[in-house]
Amino acid sequence: MTAEAPEIRLDPERGARIGIDEAVLCPQKTPAQIERILSEHRAAGRTALLTRLDEAGLAALAPEWRAALDYDPASRTAWLGAPPPPDGPARVAIVTAGASDAAPAREAARTLAFAGIASEFVFDVGVAGLWRLLDRVEHLRAMRVLIVVAGMDAALPSVLGGLVACPIIAVPCSTGYGVAAGGETALRAILASCSPGVAAVNIDNGYGAACAALRILNAAHA
Amino acid sequence: MTAEAPEIRLDPERGARIGIDEAVLCPQKTPAQIERILSEHRAAGRTALLTRLDEAGLAALAPEWRAALDYDPASRTAWLGAPPPPDGPARVAIVTAGASDAAPAREAARTLAFAGIASEFVFDVGVAGLWRLLDRVEHLRAMRVLIVVAGMDAALPSVLGGLVACPIIAVPCSTGYGVAAGGETALRAILASCSPGVAAVNIDNGYGAACAALRILNAAHA
Amino acid sequence: MTAEAPEIRLDPERGARIGIDEAVLCPQKTPAQIERILSEHRAAGRTALLTRLDEAGLAALAPEWRAALDYDPASRTAWLGAPPPPDGPARVAIVTAGASDAAPAREAARTLAFAGIASEFVFDVGVAGLWRLLDRVEHLRAMRVLIVVAGMDAALPSVLGGLVACPIIAVPCSTGYGVAAGGETALRAILASCSPGVAAVNIDNGYGAACAALRILNAAHA
Amino acid sequence: MTAEAPEIRLDPERGARIGIDEAVLCPQKTPAQIERILSEHRAAGRTALLTRLDEAGLAALAPEWRAALDYDPASRTAWLGAPPPPDGPARVAIVTAGASDAAPAREAARTLAFAGIASEFVFDVGVAGLWRLLDRVEHLRAMRVLIVVAGMDAALPSVLGGLVACPIIAVPCSTGYGVAAGGETALRAILASCSPGVAAVNIDNGYGAACAALRILNAAHA
Amino acid sequence: MTAEAPEIRLDPERGARIGIDEAVLCPQKTPAQIERILSEHRAAGRTALLTRLDEAGLAALAPEWRAALDYDPASRTAWLGAPPPPDGPARVAIVTAGASDAAPAREAARTLAFAGIASEFVFDVGVAGLWRLLDRVEHLRAMRVLIVVAGMDAALPSVLGGLVACPIIAVPCSTGYGVAAGGETALRAILASCSPGVAAVNIDNGYGAACAALRILNAAHA
Amino acid sequence: MTAEAPEIRLDPERGARIGIDEAVLCPQKTPAQIERILSEHRAAGRTALLTRLDEAGLAALAPEWRAALDYDPASRTAWLGAPPPPDGPARVAIVTAGASDAAPAREAARTLAFAGIASEFVFDVGVAGLWRLLDRVEHLRAMRVLIVVAGMDAALPSVLGGLVACPIIAVPCSTGYGVAAGGETALRAILASCSPGVAAVNIDNGYGAACAALRILNAAHA
Amino acid sequence: MTAEAPEIRLDPERGARIGIDEAVLCPQKTPAQIERILSEHRAAGRTALLTRLDEAGLAALAPEWRAALDYDPASRTAWLGAPPPPDGPARVAIVTAGASDAAPAREAARTLAFAGIASEFVFDVGVAGLWRLLDRVEHLRAMRVLIVVAGMDAALPSVLGGLVACPIIAVPCSTGYGVAAGGETALRAILASCSPGVAAVNIDNGYGAACAALRILNAAHA
Amino acid sequence: MTAEAPEIRLDPERGARIGIDEAVLCPQKTPAQIERILSEHRAAGRTALLTRLDEAGLAALAPEWRAALDYDPASRTAWLGAPPPPDGPARVAIVTAGASDAAPAREAARTLAFAGIASEFVFDVGVAGLWRLLDRVEHLRAMRVLIVVAGMDAALPSVLGGLVACPIIAVPCSTGYGVAAGGETALRAILASCSPGVAAVNIDNGYGAACAALRILNAAHA
Repeated sequence: MTAEAPEIRLDPERGARIGIDEAVLCPQKTPAQIERILSEHRAAGRTALLTRLDEAGLAALAPEWRAALDYDPASRTAWLGAPPPPDGPARVAIVTAGASDAAPAREAARTLAFAGIASEFVFDVGVAGLWRLLDRVEHLRAMRVLIVVAGMDAALPSVLGGLVACPIIAVPCSTGYGVAAGGETALRAILASCSPGVAAVNIDNGYGAACAALRILNAAHA
Repeated sequence: MTAEAPEIRLDPERGARIGIDEAVLCPQKTPAQIERILSEHRAAGRTALLTRLDEAGLAALAPEWRAALDYDPASRTAWLGAPPPPDGPARVAIVTAGASDAAPAREAARTLAFAGIASEFVFDVGVAGLWRLLDRVEHLRAMRVLIVVAGMDAALPSVLGGLVACPIIAVPCSTGYGVAAGGETALRAILASCSPGVAAVNIDNGYGAACAALRILNAAHA
Repeated sequence: MTAEAPEIRLDPERGARIGIDEAVLCPQKTPAQIERILSEHRAAGRTALLTRLDEAGLAALAPEWRAALDYDPASRTAWLGAPPPPDGPARVAIVTAGASDAAPAREAARTLAFAGIASEFVFDVGVAGLWRLLDRVEHLRAMRVLIVVAGMDAALPSVLGGLVACPIIAVPCSTGYGVAAGGETALRAILASCSPGVAAVNIDNGYGAACAALRILNAAHA
Repeated sequence: MTAEAPEIRLDPERGARIGIDEAVLCPQKTPAQIERILSEHRAAGRTALLTRLDEAGLAALAPEWRAALDYDPASRTAWLGAPPPPDGPARVAIVTAGASDAAPAREAARTLAFAGIASEFVFDVGVAGLWRLLDRVEHLRAMRVLIVVAGMDAALPSVLGGLVACPIIAVPCSTGYGVAAGGETALRAILASCSPGVAAVNIDNGYGAACAALRILNAAHA
Repeated sequence: MTAEAPEIRLDPERGARIGIDEAVLCPQKTPAQIERILSEHRAAGRTALLTRLDEAGLAALAPEWRAALDYDPASRTAWLGAPPPPDGPARVAIVTAGASDAAPAREAARTLAFAGIASEFVFDVGVAGLWRLLDRVEHLRAMRVLIVVAGMDAALPSVLGGLVACPIIAVPCSTGYGVAAGGETALRAILASCSPGVAAVNIDNGYGAACAALRILNAAHA
Repeated sequence: MTAEAPEIRLDPERGARIGIDEAVLCPQKTPAQIERILSEHRAAGRTALLTRLDEAGLAALAPEWRAALDYDPASRTAWLGAPPPPDGPARVAIVTAGASDAAPAREAARTLAFAGIASEFVFDVGVAGLWRLLDRVEHLRAMRVLIVVAGMDAALPSVLGGLVACPIIAVPCSTGYGVAAGGETALRAILASCSPGVAAVNIDNGYGAACAALRILNAAHA
Repeated sequence: MTAEAPEIRLDPERGARIGIDEAVLCPQKTPAQIERILSEHRAAGRTALLTRLDEAGLAALAPEWRAALDYDPASRTAWLGAPPPPDGPARVAIVTAGASDAAPAREAARTLAFAGIASEFVFDVGVAGLWRLLDRVEHLRAMRVLIVVAGMDAALPSVLGGLVACPIIAVPCSTGYGVAAGGETALRAILASCSPGVAAVNIDNGYGAACAALRILNAAHA
Repeated sequence: MTAEAPEIRLDPERGARIGIDEAVLCPQKTPAQIERILSEHRAAGRTALLTRLDEAGLAALAPEWRAALDYDPASRTAWLGAPPPPDGPARVAIVTAGASDAAPAREAARTLAFAGIASEFVFDVGVAGLWRLLDRVEHLRAMRVLIVVAGMDAALPSVLGGLVACPIIAVPCSTGYGVAAGGETALRAILASCSPGVAAVNIDNGYGAACAALRILNAAHA
């Protein structure tokens, strides 16, 4: 019908421009598109981070590509090529309200690790059992950035925001049912937080939270 | 055009039936309608509670009616006739997250007082300054019912729900702006609470929370 | 990428603190996470209530755990360990508007039974056939708490709220289609009820309604 | 800028075509536009019904037009010219849940009266005091059409729908606050009603409900 | 856990009370519940209409029940027992905007037929090809009731409402995508119609539209 | 607190770049900001179009600026400087469904006129009186672009889209009440239109519709 | 139950009337309905465009029909009969923000090609790598119409709208997750664009955008 | 009715705890409450920042308090006591898309200045005139934090996010009309941004954005 145009145009200078390499958001891309992107990156000697690649999406790739990827099913991320070694002890803590929030938390950790940033998890410190959080406050105060993952009513970022001074990037999470509305209530509760200076990213967007943390850490280096 | 029908039909047996007398919700009623209701109550020797009567609504009533009412502008409630004396030390605490949430809190207190139930306020214990709440937990544990008024992200009922055993009736509050959405976010956060057994009433409905408390206290008497 | 942290932190003192033991909300938890939680509880000699465990989730558990659980498919709940014997004749009635609302009703009953509280069902008394409800009003008046499950337009809690004095915890239900909107209309109708003192929990949250009832019953004991 | 076009084009054959004369919806029309419409009608010897004409809108009309109109402030309707005499005893009942719902009820009655149809009011029979409604059921069963006006949770049309056989046109009403959401909850509850065959019109649209009733009565004559 | 209560309470007097027999809304009912309802009806010598019974639901019933039912897959309705013969030439026309709207249209026709009311279809007269509708206007004017099924922008009921005098029951339809929002836009467009006296039922609710038509036809008989 | 920065940066090359000069959207601008913009334009010898300048906003300007403007209250637009003479007979028709939709229609006409494009109005041809529209179809078919302004259910663009071949830019209009939802229903109905190729702009955005028409006319010149 | 009516009424004069032949929107149509439409078209010697025909829908057609269709899985379109040869070099460019937006882009291209209009793709020029777009601006300025497909935040149409003069038809796209809300955010961002004269069609509606382009091109011919 | 409780409990240790002193959000507080808060601060020798204090709110304070405040009407902020001197050249840039977005921008600047942090404004660089932004990119790259205020479609943060490496805190702004929906579309577009690592605060929340910047700057000091 019309002359074929190249569907894919990578942005290889993004890392130099903004300190964050272009990642590959996999849903709605065909296996052929993903493979072409991987080929371009490999041909140029670049590494690549793939996000939201579920197991069916992985299985649809050619075997050589599957073999070339370091895939983590819990976060649905894959790495093409090895990341740099971690930069030392963790300066980013990834805090979750419940065990159900692990997927975005792991996506954030994998994104940071791929950029050479060490992080650590503080899981399952939801406010219904407040002592679990109060036990860890001193430890969290020593961090450079907190990524806080919380679904349902997302009270955790508000409580943390009143207890620690570090930058807080909150990730609303799609856990829950009914009025939880796929994370919409968590998002709105975070943005309406009574604690000052909590910032939010999109629902379940562990990748975006990690990128916001990278911007903060990179700025501090500058 | 059509034969005039009486617009007002009171429900005088409601108190006997459900333990809560019919109250008069004033908005959208004309002054004449309100006065007719007051007349019927007075003629029958009954007291009456008016809710959401703003100062303009009060001013629109005839002077003799204004004089007959015990009006509280902060809660926009009025009493026709004297309530019974309080039933002893407060068994209901009305807890608010911020000073801006006082109006529904006072509406709840006035409704309870009109039914002869003593209550007390615990104001301004929002989670951004968690120590303010932790200081009061022991005191709150001794209550029979807690009414918790909270706007914005409404984290307070969740935190309280993990700390005390008593029934918690949460009142989402229309304070805030932007995503707070007139109390809608507070409502949804309360209903999605990670703490078990927190129940909600309509936004700003201090009257309804007090009625829920009355049902609980009445059942305990039974 | 980062040192492995324990993903699960239980809150074993919750029962002592608020009178309700921590339950296990199963969706979004992996089978391994659920099994680890069960192990911790069994090791500590505690019983456990699992909610929203569908049949596929049950089948994904190891056979010994499946055998150890008392599973009820209609309510999607499971018990680890035997609950205490019921506390006498039912003081809680669980009322439904239609036969389609049985799942949250049964979740509430199983939650209460696990805490040793007897309850009884009053099914299928929707207001389209009002005589079915009026027949039971005297019986319902003798209860200490009513849990009312209603979908679609949720007129039942409003009608009951005008007929009985006991505390009413209403559970909006996701039955229906179109404007029923997965229970959202039922929820909003309940919160806007013209009957005073009806309180609501999240959509389909039979567990939460039972917890609210437990708070009321526990407070009465206190 | 551009040649002036006539802004108003009446539809004088509408009555002959569909049995309902064109009415004048006043908001967003300028006084000059309303006056031109009135002039056209008077010049043609036709009567006219104006809806949603508030007192400020009336006051903005020229004195001779104000004098020519039969204005009813409670319904915000005005008649130009006298309606036909009523057609006999009321065959339409207009039922309201609360005294606050009177405005759309009166708009419906004025619309019917202007078409020569007698109606009667049954006010303030909300389900929180169910006896008020049960007292009137036999009377309502004898009607040809019921118009039911209800705000907040709008339980009344559902209850009535299970008690009477006549056509029910329900008018959701913007009374209430918070989740009542300006009548949106009432509308959705009516449409999700568990009683079969209840039909709805727009929020506060007493005029539309009367027109639906006219269609039913006209069809019966045919 | 609790004494077993009968889950099903039929409302056998509904037909006598409101002229419409109770139907069986199948989703969320278990096969056992549906079979028990069918048994009760058959034992009492009554017929029964089942709605929204999809083919999987039918297949889940016992073979003898499947054999006993007159099932129509296009409308997902089933009849237990034979309906009365039609009452003469069609007095109800069921009009659709597009071929995609056939399912609710057929549900309406099957509901009417089960009550002994003849109807006819006027399919695929959407306003994008207006001549298709104008061709049929004279025919439609002779009907006693129109049921109009329309999805997407639902312009058809508005256009028809300006052309014919009969009662119009509009069924918003969930066809379409994007902003069509599962029928929500069609519903709102119908309720905001510029044509007077169009009434609406829930999205895809062909059954409800037929019941509204039955109320109109029954009232005319009275 | 911080060095004062110039708040206003005009985009004087916009006309050369995209064929449409920058206009001044007045709400939320202070009178001082508007006056500074006007000064910059006059100093550079350019004309300027102001939109959404209500009468209070006009009155807040300095008298010399008020005198310098050609203000049209019905469209809330003002011109600084004289537009070019119209380009000949109207090639754009601006069609409205009702007399209440005149404001965005006039805003579109004033925007076009300011760019030297003649347009004409076809008012009040809503589909409830379809003959009014059918009378004008031949005339409309000769136009180069139609701008169609419609509120409430916005059936007009769908009907027109099936009758004429020209480009149709639809402007949803905030007239109406209840489910009309400030134009949201009209917008969604337009976007879900069953007629192919109708495009939409924001609610009440007569200015934007005129700009879309300018793009079409300019492209045809190219 | 009722006499069978023909469910399908084609609109064969649509092409002559509005310059765009009727297309076949496949979802919710049965295979039999689609085959009947195809038969009618073939019998009349007409070609036909089918949209949103997924691979399962194609597979459900009879083999002879599958063989007769030119099917494109990426756009889910099928052609019955050969389209006219393209009209020369591309005058329409179809621009996408990301590789994930290809499906609506291809639907637009196939619709145009079926009408004999050449188009070209400019893929993957999202604003996160602005240089990719700036590289192509001169090329895009030479087009007669731009169709711009953009999901998530849909910043691309705004940026383009400030850079080129041609008509811009923007297609919001359902890519993304969380607040992207199935394309709703992209749609609203496009309609709220700060660039003048960008017009929108429904979410993912590549077909509609192509039709809007056809109207523009046809008008230019006139 | 109940013993008077102190309504105000300040959180004086907040600055020490989280690096941000408690501010006073003025709406819904009575003048008496605000004055009491000011008194407590002055008595303790602390400064105070008041936000969202409109001119009517200021006028309602006692004259001595009005005199004591440094009030800025454009940002609706007031300072009690003098802030520390700025910390050197601006490390924070506050960027706006249009002149209408100045209020939240100024609120952010005043909040930073009150904490001793210098900032600078880059006004009116919306993407419709992209050159205005490209001119300033090099300058912006040297900043430690960007606060970006954008309404309507909020394309600016996306474009900036692809051009600079620094942390970006985006403030959706309530400018615009129709689908702009009071800032809701801007918020959602920001959160769905195709540029990685942009974080958001509540609509119009310049104060919150400044606090997020303070957290980042404070962490860098640590």
